[in-house]
Amino acid sequence: MAFKKEVAIIGVGLTQFGELWDRSFRSLITEAGTKAIADAGIKPEKIDGLFGGNMSGGLFIKQEHLGSLAMDQAGLTPMPAMRIESACNSGGQALRAAYMGIKSGLHDVVVAGGVEKMTDVLTGATTEALATAADQEWEAFYGATFPGEYALIARKHMKEYGTTEEQLAKVAVKNHYNGARNPYAQYQNEITLETVMKSTRVADPLKLFDCSPITDGAAAVILANAEQAKELCDDPIWLVGSGAGTDSLALHDRRDITTLDATVAAARQAFKQTGLTTKDIDLAEVHDCFTIAEICAIEDIGFCKKGEGGKFTEQGQTSLTGSIPINTSGGLKSKGHPVGATGIAQAVEATLQLRGKADRRQIKDAEIAMAHNVGGSGGSCTVHIFSR
Amino acid sequence: MAFKKEVAIIGVGLTQFGELWDRSFRSLITEAGTKAIADAGIKPEKIDGLFGGNMSGGLFIKQEHLGSLAMDQAGLTPMPAMRIESACNSGGQALRAAYMGIKSGLHDVVVAGGVEKMTDVLTGATTEALATAADQEWEAFYGATFPGEYALIARKHMKEYGTTEEQLAKVAVKNHYNGARNPYAQYQNEITLETVMKSTRVADPLKLFDCSPITDGAAAVILANAEQAKELCDDPIWLVGSGAGTDSLALHDRRDITTLDATVAAARQAFKQTGLTTKDIDLAEVHDCFTIAEICAIEDIGFCKKGEGGKFTEQGQTSLTGSIPINTSGGLKSKGHPVGATGIAQAVEATLQLRGKADRRQIKDAEIAMAHNVGGSGGSCTVHIFSR
Repeated sequence: MAFKKEVAIIGVGLTQFGELWDRSFRSLITEAGTKAIADAGIKPEKIDGLFGGNMSGGLFIKQEHLGSLAMDQAGLTPMPAMRIESACNSGGQALRAAYMGIKSGLHDVVVAGGVEKMTDVLTGATTEALATAADQEWEAFYGATFPGEYALIARKHMKEYGTTEEQLAKVAVKNHYNGARNPYAQYQNEITLETVMKSTRVADPLKLFDCSPITDGAAAVILANAEQAKELCDDPIWLVGSGAGTDSLALHDRRDITTLDATVAAARQAFKQTGLTTKDIDLAEVHDCFTIAEICAIEDIGFCKKGEGGKFTEQGQTSLTGSIPINTSGGLKSKGHPVGATGIAQAVEATLQLRGKADRRQIKDAEIAMAHNVGGSGGSCTVHIFSR
Repeated sequence: MAFKKEVAIIGVGLTQFGELWDRSFRSLITEAGTKAIADAGIKPEKIDGLFGGNMSGGLFIKQEHLGSLAMDQAGLTPMPAMRIESACNSGGQALRAAYMGIKSGLHDVVVAGGVEKMTDVLTGATTEALATAADQEWEAFYGATFPGEYALIARKHMKEYGTTEEQLAKVAVKNHYNGARNPYAQYQNEITLETVMKSTRVADPLKLFDCSPITDGAAAVILANAEQAKELCDDPIWLVGSGAGTDSLALHDRRDITTLDATVAAARQAFKQTGLTTKDIDLAEVHDCFTIAEICAIEDIGFCKKGEGGKFTEQGQTSLTGSIPINTSGGLKSKGHPVGATGIAQAVEATLQLRGKADRRQIKDAEIAMAHNVGGSGGSCTVHIFSR
């Protein structure tokens, strides 16, 4: 294996995910951050920088300048902080920025955090805010929102490859099974195929249970360079690869709407950087904002061939005991999807699995994990690879 | 001098700054980007990443996911892109992120861009959007906006140090003198002390001409690592130091409201990293969102002693022919302040000066330049140092 162990995760923190009506944005970031610091067992003063992922503080809570807000809340001013935005991929990008921050030598120990408080606005305003991840001029303005966009992707996938609604539904069933084993998940209940199939149609062929929910939550990881990691931590988990890609925001501009080229590019970079292949990955958190998104992700990363994601899922290959467990945390579908926090929450799950601390959803002897985070309908993507 | 020449600016691009009613967000980023690429004389395909500064696409144009939007607009997908937000310091932070991207080895040639389209909303909505750079819960919600906050700083500075309204006004007179020599500036007209002193009071003691305007505009620089810079460029300008700091968003939480601790920390880091001192700086672009902000900046960076910024300005030390020319571009006051673009526009001015291409505002034999970009009332700051 070609990868270098230069950047380590030495602490993780997660809030409960859910509709947290009694919680503020500030209290969420404070909880995730203090948990991560406590988990790392370090003095907060060790931290010399913060990289925070958030999609739309402006539209959700009328607050920008969020990096400084978080640093102030942590009591760690005047240390540097920046907020990163890449729609629902803001967390993944914050992790990448933090990784760069350390690899560049400008920082030694940093927090990479992610947060979204989505429930403090009216329902219509939530949808409107999320739609700013799509192309405002070509999509959102005309009423195209994400369930509709992913429904188009699903329809095309069904037409091209014979993927069935049942196969999509099985992604949700699997992810709820996993989420039922994750105490931080928004929905900790198993569901049946029938539950999904009989649920309300949101955007045909996607039904309510094909869609991830609206979620409040925050996540944080502490990253350190190799020297600090060895000094501060007995069981560092190494962030060994970071790939990122972009595509048009508008779906109609894509080469092929069933393939997310941003995913393909990001995965390729991460594999190239580490010298690893899909066969080396023991588990992956992928961006299942809708069930069809997980099908596309496992195909685009290369865990199965293009078009075979539905069948692959149906065969149980992506379950906890399958050949490549996908979304052991419950994924966005069951764990919840506070958009700016998701990419960091995926890194938290990867870390817990590689530490062997994922309890009832533990993948035995996991050594290499992947996290795949997407913005919008595929306008951006990050892929990170973690090693024990 | 201790600094290393590892990251170079090899191209710069700027749109006209102003109230650009006939221009879209997309057209602004395209113009700045294509100008920077043309200035660098490189093939666009050389670019392998983008770091874009923008304060509030969500509130100003109902569009997030701006890194990908820019990359798509440039025709450079699937290359990675991220958007950085740090209020009015978003551009400075994007420059810092790009610097990290190259120093980390993940990127070779990148665009660092900044943009804000501020005039496509009603006037009240502009103020409301800008106020999200302040503390929403403790300031903005109660009606405190930035003219009011900086007026408090000015009052305190006048009380503590005897600074006069005339001294503040002289910052504006100087910056308009410089801006009148910058073809990209929003206001290319000289003004008199009387103009400032007789202008409408906005927030006592600050008058209309103490305040920077609402501006549309975009700026871009192309950064390259040393190897690429040598291959692609005959006259690289080196980005040799990057410092960043934070502070509370809320003014009432500060140790001393006339000192921006975020500036102090950021400047200290940049000086430490480069082994330079204030005496080595030939010119500086500083964040004069209000005239008092320039006074605080030159004190906090250390160009003069605390409390002496007013007198220092009155003596002409910060003029084009002074001991340390400040805001040769016209600064935010005269050049304009498209908030997310400002930090990058400062880097453009530094580059032009160090290339000896700043026309009628050229500082003779300039070798080292500084850019100082602030978010909100001092919640964040970046300080960058550039060398020929």
